[in-house]
Amino acid sequence: MLKAKVTLVKEMQFVGDSGSGHAIVMDSDPSVGGKNTGPRPVELLLIASGGCTGMDVISILRKKKQDVTGLEINVKGNKAEEFPKKLTEITIEYIVKGRNISEEAVKRAVELSMNKYCSVKATLEGSAKIHYSYKIINE
Amino acid sequence: MLKAKVTLVKEMQFVGDSGSGHAIVMDSDPSVGGKNTGPRPVELLLIASGGCTGMDVISILRKKKQDVTGLEINVKGNKAEEFPKKLTEITIEYIVKGRNISEEAVKRAVELSMNKYCSVKATLEGSAKIHYSYKIINE
Repeated sequence: MLKAKVTLVKEMQFVGDSGSGHAIVMDSDPSVGGKNTGPRPVELLLIASGGCTGMDVISILRKKKQDVTGLEINVKGNKAEEFPKKLTEITIEYIVKGRNISEEAVKRAVELSMNKYCSVKATLEGSAKIHYSYKIINE
Repeated sequence: MLKAKVTLVKEMQFVGDSGSGHAIVMDSDPSVGGKNTGPRPVELLLIASGGCTGMDVISILRKKKQDVTGLEINVKGNKAEEFPKKLTEITIEYIVKGRNISEEAVKRAVELSMNKYCSVKATLEGSAKIHYSYKIINE
């Protein structure tokens, strides 16, 4: 069972405490009464997508003895125009940096995460179409 | 278009930058190579749920001139046992504290968020069944 507690601080600022013991500030845009002191809740869905699949991919690449020196994941999301403006599309771009990185290893790692392991992707794809691509930068 | 960038720092620690300009540390459990320096990515889905609906509910209660002195949202999530272990169920409990809070106003605020406004709930319900309840504590 996963748990979180979210507490109103003031105005539109909330703090979320995760079951694992970490706290995150969230806030809304000044146009809707917030002060932008933290991310919008919906942005956390994109960050969670990148973190979840990033952890899978780096684990798999390490197991495959790839000499990875950097991993960045750019995530973009499109929302529906009508309320409740759910996420309809998510685009994930992996940028793997390293030395003699095998394209086959990266392709396999990304596919394993997207098709088998990533719980966040699997949850979000109930509503959002997920696209992904990768780039390798060998130094 | 929403954006986020997620960057590997070291081991299983990643930092996610939101398009609105805020950064969040994520990490995995020590059992899978992490150091628990930040929340798990999947926990962010629960925190996002609470933050999103919390912002809706407090906005609506303020418009209804309710004298709210506190708002807490407890969120629980169940994951599937099989990989990719997606979230299958989310339970949201609102605790509204205040003076002479109208139950009708709380009921209406929660329903408007759940059924009309909350983008995170609308996105997650593509995979997860969402349950909710509320408690009012008049001081």
